[in-house]
Amino acid sequence: MRMLIENARILTMNENMDEHLTGWIVIEDNLITALGSGAFEKAGQLFDEIVDAGGDLIMPGMVNTHCHMSMTMFRGLGEDVDDRLFRYILPLEREAVTPDVVRIGAQLAALEMMLGGVTTTADMYYFEREVGRVLDGAGMRGVVGQSLANFAAPDHTSFDEGFALVDALRDEFAGHERIIASIAPHAPYSTGPAIMARVAQYVADNPSVKIQMHLAEMKSEMEWCATHHGCRPVELADRAGILQEGAIMAHCLEITPAEIELMAERGITVAHNARSNAKAGRGIAPVEAMRKAGLSVGLATDGPMSGNTLDIFAQMAPASLFAKLLGGSRACLPAQEVVKMATIEAAAVLGMSDMIGSLAEGKRADLIRISLDAPHLLPIYDIYAALVFSAAASDVRDVLVNGVWLVKNRVSLTVEREKVMREAAQCAAAFRSKISQIDGVN
Amino acid sequence: MRMLIENARILTMNENMDEHLTGWIVIEDNLITALGSGAFEKAGQLFDEIVDAGGDLIMPGMVNTHCHMSMTMFRGLGEDVDDRLFRYILPLEREAVTPDVVRIGAQLAALEMMLGGVTTTADMYYFEREVGRVLDGAGMRGVVGQSLANFAAPDHTSFDEGFALVDALRDEFAGHERIIASIAPHAPYSTGPAIMARVAQYVADNPSVKIQMHLAEMKSEMEWCATHHGCRPVELADRAGILQEGAIMAHCLEITPAEIELMAERGITVAHNARSNAKAGRGIAPVEAMRKAGLSVGLATDGPMSGNTLDIFAQMAPASLFAKLLGGSRACLPAQEVVKMATIEAAAVLGMSDMIGSLAEGKRADLIRISLDAPHLLPIYDIYAALVFSAAASDVRDVLVNGVWLVKNRVSLTVEREKVMREAAQCAAAFRSKISQIDGVN
Repeated sequence: MRMLIENARILTMNENMDEHLTGWIVIEDNLITALGSGAFEKAGQLFDEIVDAGGDLIMPGMVNTHCHMSMTMFRGLGEDVDDRLFRYILPLEREAVTPDVVRIGAQLAALEMMLGGVTTTADMYYFEREVGRVLDGAGMRGVVGQSLANFAAPDHTSFDEGFALVDALRDEFAGHERIIASIAPHAPYSTGPAIMARVAQYVADNPSVKIQMHLAEMKSEMEWCATHHGCRPVELADRAGILQEGAIMAHCLEITPAEIELMAERGITVAHNARSNAKAGRGIAPVEAMRKAGLSVGLATDGPMSGNTLDIFAQMAPASLFAKLLGGSRACLPAQEVVKMATIEAAAVLGMSDMIGSLAEGKRADLIRISLDAPHLLPIYDIYAALVFSAAASDVRDVLVNGVWLVKNRVSLTVEREKVMREAAQCAAAFRSKISQIDGVN
Repeated sequence: MRMLIENARILTMNENMDEHLTGWIVIEDNLITALGSGAFEKAGQLFDEIVDAGGDLIMPGMVNTHCHMSMTMFRGLGEDVDDRLFRYILPLEREAVTPDVVRIGAQLAALEMMLGGVTTTADMYYFEREVGRVLDGAGMRGVVGQSLANFAAPDHTSFDEGFALVDALRDEFAGHERIIASIAPHAPYSTGPAIMARVAQYVADNPSVKIQMHLAEMKSEMEWCATHHGCRPVELADRAGILQEGAIMAHCLEITPAEIELMAERGITVAHNARSNAKAGRGIAPVEAMRKAGLSVGLATDGPMSGNTLDIFAQMAPASLFAKLLGGSRACLPAQEVVKMATIEAAAVLGMSDMIGSLAEGKRADLIRISLDAPHLLPIYDIYAALVFSAAASDVRDVLVNGVWLVKNRVSLTVEREKVMREAAQCAAAFRSKISQIDGVN
């Protein structure tokens, strides 16, 4: 398979932040093999497909560094209730989450993400094998994390059972080109030091398995940690050995400058859930301080019960606005930095920046095409500002992952839209009637 | 003209917040004459047009309470620079703003707004007659404010000239069904007490002319006011008599509880520019405190050089998220309240809540149709949360103002899209070369 994309405005997001106002890209099988400026000389060359981008923007696919895809089935529930994690979410999950719910919810999420230009996502949930299979079938890339938790999770009643699920996930996706198995201790308060240490040992024994965890997310977590362990969550996690090189920590809201230094030393990475954190009234993560310390920080949607949308465009403006509010200046977290956090830096968060996140020779062919010919995007004096502050998921026209089109002309090719939406609607209806039986849930 | 919209999910936004899961609306000429639940009995009735909404949502058109439409031509300039008002914006406006620029910029803005479901906007700028004409031609509703300022504005070199422009605007749109003339002293610091008092007198003499002003927006304004007048902007404006019943004050960030009480007593209304305020790093306006005191607060985009987008969907989630951050709770400013601030309450801000902002018998037929059949909107457990946290401008399918379709199937009927975009691109190119001659402007 040999493809040429020509007549494109190209954002490479490479180290030099090279842009081509008019450029071309050659793709062979799943790799970008060449790209450049100007008109491509096609004489004597054979292509299976030639795409005239007509001046549209080609850029790396968006990377979502933290998600709970299947929670689309919970989207819009318990919207305005504080402390709903323990009051609503956990009882709902125990009662209602089955492999079918996970599969149907993940399908809807994959559809929404691909239509919005997300080509790679991290995920952590229960029955995570189903999520891996959905992402695989959708043609997307993913880091799929089997959650471990002590609160009677829907798919395990003991940590031994939980670790067995991680084993099964690891085995199912061993050597997979696009799906990477991950182990996801839910949080310090829902696992504890001994289990976090066991996770650290598991990863030492299984170096292909990545760690994902919620860390330093909220006041109740800080209180639990102080009361039960006389320290803060970052210290507790570090003592357990879980802050390993490449471990992905989500949220990191309640952190001190010294903790930021420690996190950077350990080589962990951070998933920044801008909208979800704000929606819970929890505050603004110190993104600029973390990045200044050398931590890779990627944008993330969080699960749709917390953040509602699953597109990264919806995260970009808020991420910048929150940083500007925190720093008290328009100069904080400028648009170009935000686009990095949606692409190359998010890829680094997932340990995949050698493969994806920028457009360069030898990298995987994961890219999106954005129509710039829209009133809300005009004029384009600053392409990064246009992407961050004006563009929307609906501006994404085509999506390519690993050299395969997932979306063309805003139509999903690898997921059956009508079938997935019908199954989701049926599942939501059944779900709703179950929910009404759980005391106190709206 | 007699029209029936049937098979619609209807949000009325009326006093009882009535919703119809399946409902119908009858429109005669420019008025809603009946609406209700269930199937409409058509036997023996004659309609010029029958619309089967196919389960789509029908709700009041969005109302934008503060804008500088023509600044689309500046969108994306000087993105990350603090204090750019005096360093960039004012020199750029002096150099580059002509009636043609105002007209072309306003056309592009009108196109973007109508496609995003905004049916009514407030605006304040120079050569404002051009803006009024553009809105009139587009079929939109507007409160168009001629700006008055002491910093060598593009269209007046003295306040006498400025007031003459207000006279001309008042005369041109006297008795107009959709366009209301307004007088817009730029801000306390750019007019001063004597001119604010003259504005107050002008409005006493011309009660049909509404006041719009920027108030209590930023630290430099507070410092100016303290230094030159020994007080705060709200007090200065009040002493000048400008805080009149129905005057629209934009921003209101730097206000105390006592000032909120005073503002409520005076009966002014507030335009809340959530994204624009945050983008400048200025802070979060105390929306909940203002609303609790009885002030009407409407969402606003601000001008596109400050807020980039001109659709109210892009404001809704941030407005709620900022309020939740300010209040430290998920319960702050819930979705339903945000939708009010985009419709009926925004209409009240503009003094038009007897005419628009909700769907009810006798009100003007200003409404929008939103496609709910989209992956990112599923499932809909809470329609207000879906609108605020998941929906986007691109979900708007049809737009009706005063009984006339402005947009059908996402195509603008009253504005020539290609022509407007071509003119805007040409204007931006010329503009860019002018800008490069202004020292220090990017």
